[in-house]
Amino acid sequence: MNDESHSNIMNPDDTAELRQLYADFEAEHLMPLWTQIDDIMPVVPKPKALPHIWKWSRLFPLAERSGALVPVGRGGERRAIGLANPGLGGKAYITPTLWAAIQYLGPRETAPEHRHAQNAFRFVVEGEGVWTVVNGDPVRMSRGDLLLTPGWHFHGHHNDTDHPMAWIDGLDIPFSYQNDVGFFEFGADRVTDYATPRFSRGERLWGHPGLRPLSELKDTVSSPLAAYRWEHTDRALTEQLLLEDEGQPATIEPGHAAIRYVNPTTGGDVMPTIRCEFHRLRAGTVTPSRREVGSSVFQIFEGAGSIMLNQVETRLETGDLFVVPSWTTWSLKSETQFDLFRFSDAPVIERLGFARSQIEGAAR
Amino acid sequence: MNDESHSNIMNPDDTAELRQLYADFEAEHLMPLWTQIDDIMPVVPKPKALPHIWKWSRLFPLAERSGALVPVGRGGERRAIGLANPGLGGKAYITPTLWAAIQYLGPRETAPEHRHAQNAFRFVVEGEGVWTVVNGDPVRMSRGDLLLTPGWHFHGHHNDTDHPMAWIDGLDIPFSYQNDVGFFEFGADRVTDYATPRFSRGERLWGHPGLRPLSELKDTVSSPLAAYRWEHTDRALTEQLLLEDEGQPATIEPGHAAIRYVNPTTGGDVMPTIRCEFHRLRAGTVTPSRREVGSSVFQIFEGAGSIMLNQVETRLETGDLFVVPSWTTWSLKSETQFDLFRFSDAPVIERLGFARSQIEGAAR
Amino acid sequence: MNDESHSNIMNPDDTAELRQLYADFEAEHLMPLWTQIDDIMPVVPKPKALPHIWKWSRLFPLAERSGALVPVGRGGERRAIGLANPGLGGKAYITPTLWAAIQYLGPRETAPEHRHAQNAFRFVVEGEGVWTVVNGDPVRMSRGDLLLTPGWHFHGHHNDTDHPMAWIDGLDIPFSYQNDVGFFEFGADRVTDYATPRFSRGERLWGHPGLRPLSELKDTVSSPLAAYRWEHTDRALTEQLLLEDEGQPATIEPGHAAIRYVNPTTGGDVMPTIRCEFHRLRAGTVTPSRREVGSSVFQIFEGAGSIMLNQVETRLETGDLFVVPSWTTWSLKSETQFDLFRFSDAPVIERLGFARSQIEGAAR
Amino acid sequence: MNDESHSNIMNPDDTAELRQLYADFEAEHLMPLWTQIDDIMPVVPKPKALPHIWKWSRLFPLAERSGALVPVGRGGERRAIGLANPGLGGKAYITPTLWAAIQYLGPRETAPEHRHAQNAFRFVVEGEGVWTVVNGDPVRMSRGDLLLTPGWHFHGHHNDTDHPMAWIDGLDIPFSYQNDVGFFEFGADRVTDYATPRFSRGERLWGHPGLRPLSELKDTVSSPLAAYRWEHTDRALTEQLLLEDEGQPATIEPGHAAIRYVNPTTGGDVMPTIRCEFHRLRAGTVTPSRREVGSSVFQIFEGAGSIMLNQVETRLETGDLFVVPSWTTWSLKSETQFDLFRFSDAPVIERLGFARSQIEGAAR
Repeated sequence: MNDESHSNIMNPDDTAELRQLYADFEAEHLMPLWTQIDDIMPVVPKPKALPHIWKWSRLFPLAERSGALVPVGRGGERRAIGLANPGLGGKAYITPTLWAAIQYLGPRETAPEHRHAQNAFRFVVEGEGVWTVVNGDPVRMSRGDLLLTPGWHFHGHHNDTDHPMAWIDGLDIPFSYQNDVGFFEFGADRVTDYATPRFSRGERLWGHPGLRPLSELKDTVSSPLAAYRWEHTDRALTEQLLLEDEGQPATIEPGHAAIRYVNPTTGGDVMPTIRCEFHRLRAGTVTPSRREVGSSVFQIFEGAGSIMLNQVETRLETGDLFVVPSWTTWSLKSETQFDLFRFSDAPVIERLGFARSQIEGAAR
Repeated sequence: MNDESHSNIMNPDDTAELRQLYADFEAEHLMPLWTQIDDIMPVVPKPKALPHIWKWSRLFPLAERSGALVPVGRGGERRAIGLANPGLGGKAYITPTLWAAIQYLGPRETAPEHRHAQNAFRFVVEGEGVWTVVNGDPVRMSRGDLLLTPGWHFHGHHNDTDHPMAWIDGLDIPFSYQNDVGFFEFGADRVTDYATPRFSRGERLWGHPGLRPLSELKDTVSSPLAAYRWEHTDRALTEQLLLEDEGQPATIEPGHAAIRYVNPTTGGDVMPTIRCEFHRLRAGTVTPSRREVGSSVFQIFEGAGSIMLNQVETRLETGDLFVVPSWTTWSLKSETQFDLFRFSDAPVIERLGFARSQIEGAAR
Repeated sequence: MNDESHSNIMNPDDTAELRQLYADFEAEHLMPLWTQIDDIMPVVPKPKALPHIWKWSRLFPLAERSGALVPVGRGGERRAIGLANPGLGGKAYITPTLWAAIQYLGPRETAPEHRHAQNAFRFVVEGEGVWTVVNGDPVRMSRGDLLLTPGWHFHGHHNDTDHPMAWIDGLDIPFSYQNDVGFFEFGADRVTDYATPRFSRGERLWGHPGLRPLSELKDTVSSPLAAYRWEHTDRALTEQLLLEDEGQPATIEPGHAAIRYVNPTTGGDVMPTIRCEFHRLRAGTVTPSRREVGSSVFQIFEGAGSIMLNQVETRLETGDLFVVPSWTTWSLKSETQFDLFRFSDAPVIERLGFARSQIEGAAR
Repeated sequence: MNDESHSNIMNPDDTAELRQLYADFEAEHLMPLWTQIDDIMPVVPKPKALPHIWKWSRLFPLAERSGALVPVGRGGERRAIGLANPGLGGKAYITPTLWAAIQYLGPRETAPEHRHAQNAFRFVVEGEGVWTVVNGDPVRMSRGDLLLTPGWHFHGHHNDTDHPMAWIDGLDIPFSYQNDVGFFEFGADRVTDYATPRFSRGERLWGHPGLRPLSELKDTVSSPLAAYRWEHTDRALTEQLLLEDEGQPATIEPGHAAIRYVNPTTGGDVMPTIRCEFHRLRAGTVTPSRREVGSSVFQIFEGAGSIMLNQVETRLETGDLFVVPSWTTWSLKSETQFDLFRFSDAPVIERLGFARSQIEGAAR
């Protein structure tokens, strides 16, 4: 407990009778609250997950080596290498709710189709040439794009080029596993459509600002827009900073532009368990220290800067990933214009009523 | 009543006693239901509003003449000429809920700022050169654009050119008047900002598909996107027809593409009382006959075709407007590609639980 | 306009040319905005409906006389006498949206079944012995009860006793008529079930606080609870005043207890167009003056007091009804404990974004 | 994987190079998906939690013994003994999301006040005499009652009698711990109000069916009704079975009545993470086999019968508890009238889009 003036009066004397009681508890599959309340009901969140940084310069060569040694195909399904939070005991969980991996697809390779209850997205920090086929709709993957494969949508990937490509996958695998909600089904061993259109059918239907097809009036749990293109994200952020220059409200704090990717049928998060955002800092910006309930992962998209996590500052470059566990204080600092992709479990936290945040020592 | 086998057994004999009763009712501000139920509770809606067509070729010259004779300015506020449904007894109501007008602004003129509880939009069938200033944000008006001035937003217009411009205004004036919900306030006698930017601040913040500013997470009653540009509308409709060509679901019925303009914070209608849509028919398309509860107004944007309203067919050209009263059967027929803007009171009907529709004799 | 310093500069000289223009407008079914804006876009709501009071002591004898002279049955459907607002030009509308009537059913009479899109309720100020059969479910009507017959539910009434009974009906007939949303259908000429159970099936399923049948998990547009019993209403109000005595938050203002009747599937209004409430004032209470957008009707259920409507005070007794048009200032004053039933069009106003209110000169 | 015809082609040869790659992965806190996908992305949920039954006849004496040996008070906070699912490795978790405990309070004892982000309820299978004080409001605890202490509400308990009392506590401790959302704060060392009213203030305000205080129009995340009384639950279930006898729709399946406890401000679940229900089977009823995503706990309230969990049948008596892990097939069989309280994590599952269920082999 946080208050040392409260001694625990529920520490009974260690008698034979008490030991027998505890043994009898165990035999009946029982455990007392009073011996473990400090652990399981902490004063503030005490995540086992640790703040940690993965360097793209080390991830990418390892992905390349796995490309040479490990074929992609049915069974393992994806040449994806998960980021394992050092505090989470040997599971490939970046946070208790989220999975993040680098996925690598060699020239002309195909990752076969499957579907699962888990929600997934991909974000492309560099490269191009792969198409993701989502429920039969081929979706181009290019630098800066966010691509969705929401729960129970069939999807596969194929590389249409003679060079490899890598990107990051984000999923709610830990959450699904922990709460026993996962289903999985194989699809085609190849992707169902090898076409390589510039724009997916989903974008052609839904990618027009403020315009909804009359054939699609039913709201959907996840976004029907399979691709959020860099061109739009970049323009939105650019405009926010220009508006700030003009003295207009647009940024969330001085020098800090940001957008949330949303489901156009509702204006809410793209998927029920994962929030996706993109942040841009002007050169020379320091964001206020803040902490939030729930966990986040960031990837540097471009520019140079650093992250301060619980007082420890680390310099970051393109492709680097870092994780912010629940209630961990963080602040960003930019040297150049600094672009970051972010995803988190905020929809889980908010829909279940657990959201709290603190900025720079303000009352929570 | 619809069933002639039911005689009205509540027709008492016309006695002196009954006459005295009815006179006493009147003296006490009372009226029996049984003598008027057929009128006030009809078997199906029996609108007083009539189907009617206004020709742009006659509207526009009248607007021009008013430009010469009537100054625009404070008091009258707008050089707007309302379309008066022939069935609605001399009020400038195009339906019981909706107002439609042609507004005309001469070279270099300004229509002063004001705000009102009534929701309003403008749709531009031809021309350019005017800016609407909405809560201080200058919004360019160009051909094919939909511009919003939701309830209680200050707005004025100014013509930045040496030629006149005309467009249509749509409002919920009849609904507001009938239900006593209207408020009105004068603003600046000039517009507050004579800048003529290509894109308004609202578009720069909100006009990116599926991207929401993190500074704007609170949902709004009306759309924050003041302008829906023709370029986007046209592309969305074009894609729907191309997708149909490819055998993909996209149109609402064969040859009939359509979009609804929506509030990006919710995916719902742009304003709480007015729905706005745009429809495009391929050449040679005939839509099924349908009828709906609630009233609509259409304006031909481009192309040639005709409207069948209660069995009466009328040929239509660019700029022509027609009104479809509640539960009136309508069908469109196209000769060329046929583009139509539509607005209606559907949000009122749906939010209050009165929606019904029938297509081609299907059971309602 | 509210600001007399603004002359209307849009009053062009009355020339022959202008007259010709106006005549040409008329020929084309057009009307200028500038000549009528003061009327149709007022600074604040200027309802045609007037504040008015109907005395139960005069209503009831007239209902009795109609019982003697006018049979009840098919065609006229109901022996209901509508309260016609003196400002609404000879229609039986108590406000632009609401209908209120006294309905009278003689000993052993039946009012035949029908259904209509209009939403309806009954409130019983005195008497008992009638059952309303709603979609086949017989619902007892007793003093102080609120009974619902939401849109498109079949319903009829029958008097199981040897004495007559009267009550008030509230409907959205004016709103439905004005907006052309009404449908009507005859049902059985008799009621479908002459059983006289103490509690309806709807109450037996739904009338348990905070308990929802697992067989009824789909939310409904209108409340599934056909009857709200006086016993519960009285107890809820009594408790609020006792809590106030104990210094606990419970009343809406000192001495003023109130409940809203709600749909248990949503916690919202009982029907999409009509709000129903019950108010109780301690003896000697004066409520602050207030005005609201939207119109209300009150009926005195018990006690003595008075209503101040736009500065005019009128004393009220059991059964008296009064109407508060939109934006009309009102205040209640109680001599004894003072109980009032209220219904209004507030759900229309709120769902469509027009709600505003003012209390005692506070800024709106 | 479920399909044995798919061999895992992603099993590369066990070479030195591969071993080095895997070692390098580990050094960089990385783990491949392909070696663990079968575990973390199962075809259907494969809960670690096991179906299990705890006998009240063994729980209660252990609670009594702890009453003699362990004082209740600050630090340990509650004399609560958690049910530890045998599959969950030594934590007092009954499912991955839910905590269930028997709590025991001796004569005249007080459990001190505290609050926590975790949502909690108590259900009383026998006894009376304790009051829970929730945010200062004393709430009587009696047989058959459900009592809520939603997240961040202060609460303590005190026994006003000379005999002990025991009940079950249900919380979302595992979910909160796993996802790092927990906060905890001490309150008064005694309860703030030792009054013992028959009804809490929350019940007096909110416990009237379909009536909402006008002073409480803002919807709340959790139910404002701190107590759901047995008298109401029993009556609701009795009526469902009587309606079934009359041939009316009321039960969820023949012989199976059930209610969900709901938040009267929304009609939805009482708390954002925990669903509470009560089920009653007529004597001689067998429910169809079903399985659902998400986990449940049942306690027998009265009567005799048995539970079939994954083909294993166990006889149950009053007070016995059993757990149904995710996607575990279950069916109830009653000998007498059989009453069961149920709680589950269904709101988590549904709000996050993971709900699925199967009844008797029907397609999921």
